[in-house]
Amino acid sequence: MNITWLGIAAGILTSFAVLPQLIKTWHTKHAEDISIWQLIMLAAGTFLWLIYGIVINDLPLKLANGFSSFCYLLLICMKVVYDKRAASL
Amino acid sequence: MNITWLGIAAGILTSFAVLPQLIKTWHTKHAEDISIWQLIMLAAGTFLWLIYGIVINDLPLKLANGFSSFCYLLLICMKVVYDKRAASL
Repeated sequence: MNITWLGIAAGILTSFAVLPQLIKTWHTKHAEDISIWQLIMLAAGTFLWLIYGIVINDLPLKLANGFSSFCYLLLICMKVVYDKRAASL
Repeated sequence: MNITWLGIAAGILTSFAVLPQLIKTWHTKHAEDISIWQLIMLAAGTFLWLIYGIVINDLPLKLANGFSSFCYLLLICMKVVYDKRAASL
């Protein structure tokens, strides 16, 4: 097995793992069980990877981390809104 | 700013983001809002990164991904147990 493909498969899995969470939270409108610190660390971490990708001019790093930092930012907004809504009920 | 430190900071943030979620879920014993597919993709992805790190013999890759794949596996077990418990109430 080509080692580069192993890295690509790993990168695809970790980069797109945010999608099922985003879809689930969008449908349930409920995010109380999700740790806000996990989301903040992932948003900040993938944003730093994006900057890193820009500096070393690496397209896969830029694409994957641009996408996932945006998604984690969206999830943070959703969590804040849905948690406030749940608290006011 | 040294570009290597940017990558190290990014890696630390994304690798240890699982910790606050693990602690929160352990305390609340509640994980319904968390997508099981996100956890499976992150466990599988970080496990592939671990294998990748073993093949290219890179210590930071091995340590960070060995740690986070183990934590995501733990989270999957916790989610399965707590979701079953919640469903039987």
